[in-house]
Amino acid sequence: MLKKVLKFGGTSVGSIDRIQHVANIIKKEHDSGNQIITIVSAMSGKTNELVKLSQEINKDFDKRELDVLLSSGEQVTCALLAGALISKNLKARSWMNWQIPILTEGEHSNSRIININTTKINNYIKNGVAIIPGFQGISRDGDITTIGRGGSDATAVALAKLLDADRCEIYTDVDGVFSTDPNKIPVAKKIDKISFDEMLELSSLGAKVMQSSAVQTAMMYDIPLEVRSTFTDRKGTKIFHQENLDYTKSVTGVAYSKDDAKITLLGVEDKPGVAANIFEPLHKAQINVDMVIQNISSDQKKTDITFTIKRNDLLKTKEILKNNKKISYKGFTQNEKVAKVSIVGAGMVSTPGVTYKMFKALADEKINILAISTSEIKLSVIIDEDNTLNAVKKLHTIFDLD
Amino acid sequence: MLKKVLKFGGTSVGSIDRIQHVANIIKKEHDSGNQIITIVSAMSGKTNELVKLSQEINKDFDKRELDVLLSSGEQVTCALLAGALISKNLKARSWMNWQIPILTEGEHSNSRIININTTKINNYIKNGVAIIPGFQGISRDGDITTIGRGGSDATAVALAKLLDADRCEIYTDVDGVFSTDPNKIPVAKKIDKISFDEMLELSSLGAKVMQSSAVQTAMMYDIPLEVRSTFTDRKGTKIFHQENLDYTKSVTGVAYSKDDAKITLLGVEDKPGVAANIFEPLHKAQINVDMVIQNISSDQKKTDITFTIKRNDLLKTKEILKNNKKISYKGFTQNEKVAKVSIVGAGMVSTPGVTYKMFKALADEKINILAISTSEIKLSVIIDEDNTLNAVKKLHTIFDLD
Repeated sequence: MLKKVLKFGGTSVGSIDRIQHVANIIKKEHDSGNQIITIVSAMSGKTNELVKLSQEINKDFDKRELDVLLSSGEQVTCALLAGALISKNLKARSWMNWQIPILTEGEHSNSRIININTTKINNYIKNGVAIIPGFQGISRDGDITTIGRGGSDATAVALAKLLDADRCEIYTDVDGVFSTDPNKIPVAKKIDKISFDEMLELSSLGAKVMQSSAVQTAMMYDIPLEVRSTFTDRKGTKIFHQENLDYTKSVTGVAYSKDDAKITLLGVEDKPGVAANIFEPLHKAQINVDMVIQNISSDQKKTDITFTIKRNDLLKTKEILKNNKKISYKGFTQNEKVAKVSIVGAGMVSTPGVTYKMFKALADEKINILAISTSEIKLSVIIDEDNTLNAVKKLHTIFDLD
Repeated sequence: MLKKVLKFGGTSVGSIDRIQHVANIIKKEHDSGNQIITIVSAMSGKTNELVKLSQEINKDFDKRELDVLLSSGEQVTCALLAGALISKNLKARSWMNWQIPILTEGEHSNSRIININTTKINNYIKNGVAIIPGFQGISRDGDITTIGRGGSDATAVALAKLLDADRCEIYTDVDGVFSTDPNKIPVAKKIDKISFDEMLELSSLGAKVMQSSAVQTAMMYDIPLEVRSTFTDRKGTKIFHQENLDYTKSVTGVAYSKDDAKITLLGVEDKPGVAANIFEPLHKAQINVDMVIQNISSDQKKTDITFTIKRNDLLKTKEILKNNKKISYKGFTQNEKVAKVSIVGAGMVSTPGVTYKMFKALADEKINILAISTSEIKLSVIIDEDNTLNAVKKLHTIFDLD
């Protein structure tokens, strides 16, 4: 007997047929003697539809009321799934965030789960299936809150932790985590096992199978995850702590992000606090700065700083730089059509020559590297966007991932 | 300064444009210095859409989960309307049933409101607008409940009572209560004032402007109502206690119901309890029996009993009668295409000759009366359905309602 948290995303519950299918998966798990807690998202498209309604009223719709609005989506799925299970003669019931309660703190639309009362649920799952809405909670004041898009993953991981579950399985519309984007690179392969660190690097780089903060929470509390498909019986990807994995390959996956732009500030005065002065106003304007690289300039008192942002933030960023009285620099260059390609692998540290192998492969393809950034388990390069797929394919091949 | 409960039905909030329009109505009321509590229904079509989803899973969908499902509809409207008001720089917030709470008792999908905690709302409306979902509440166990279709009217009346409001205004998609169906009889006229009793007779007879049980509650607690249109500035229909009205006309309106069928049981043994024995199994089968008329038969120990039901219950009703071992009768006749036409008016009691006038008018039109039933403020006849509109038009004219 295992205590399992099963989470089903929006596409997995996107129609009545799919909800019935999910009910069958749950019934099979329950009939095998497992205790089941199910977390569900809103039916696919539903949250976007509600956001659209709110924006017809006001682009800057009141955040408190937006949370009331959006939380209705998971409520619908919970009721339908519970009803489907009851129709299959299982004991089942839905719990709303306030009935549990799932306590959160922080501002509306971006709250964090801080506690979940598990007594009632633990009692109930002894012979029934608990259905719980993802993505939402209530504040100490009793207001409905939401925890950000993709937050159902966070609900699942938090419940797995607080209920001391044996498993946390994330059911989705893909077979698992892939070595690169399977839609673009057909030789991409499903990864059977991956470490939390690698998963984090991959998911923040565009392999958006799971919400990053949920992976972080699972890592912090050592909750093993499995990402698997709702629509096939195939095994998914298991996500463990690094020490539990045996690395036969130096590189686990190749990720890329598109629609990036690169700015280099030339001849910036090199003194403490200068980076903060550059990036603080960008942060305030909610411009997401990704890679930051600082080069030594020819002038000893000056430095060059390169960073990447999303392309549609480029104009706003230049505006802010020009109006920034706290910094002085000679000028800047920009490249508005770049991509970031990264190789990720916990085995990289222990494998010499990975860096050289990557640069050599790109050189062979005559792809110019515009910037480089490294971490313990990741090596990212900025290149011209047109070369993205070429670069990803080449790297996927030379690191034996095909 | 008045404390007003304003209730907006599904068509009044059926689109973002209409929600904005409702927000303007509320803003105008609020700017005039009134304290406003708003009750809203689900956007038109929404509840049916959710019911349809549940029935795709199971025609007999679990009642508890159905309430969870359906209550999401009003939640969406509440959030959108609150957001629209905030965008117009009003202080406003939505309250969910459990945040107030609105306490109910009775079974799921058919609960009754027993208490509403008014403290927080009374404080809030001193300078803000409270938006509250109709149709729903929570049980003592903390489950979501609903109070039956059309239940938003009941929520409005209950809140008006418990908040000791000065006014309860029901905004809808018609101008008010009409002397008969304006869609079929163009000379139908809006009634400016009507008594609770008359309103009840009219609404149970098909003038479905307001839910009957809400009118009953308003009558019981003497809460004056006004039914008016969301889409025009015209005055609506005021609903008072009878003594507050001045009757210049004997008849206030002409109502009719369609799709009826009539059954007469012939030669029923005339002894105590026989009616109960006939109707108990029909009640259990949820067949709604409308008019019941008992005639004296030629045989002194026997009687004839006539009653009407909805036409699509006819087969089931005959089946039940045939299998009923507790009653004995000679046989029955049926007429499966009848209609009930009623004249309603609190002034009827004090006006002699109304009955004769009605029968004479129908005779002039060569309309045969199949059964008659009377109450203090109502006179109903059963006729062949084909004659319905003719009868209604004629009665509307002779009682000076055109």
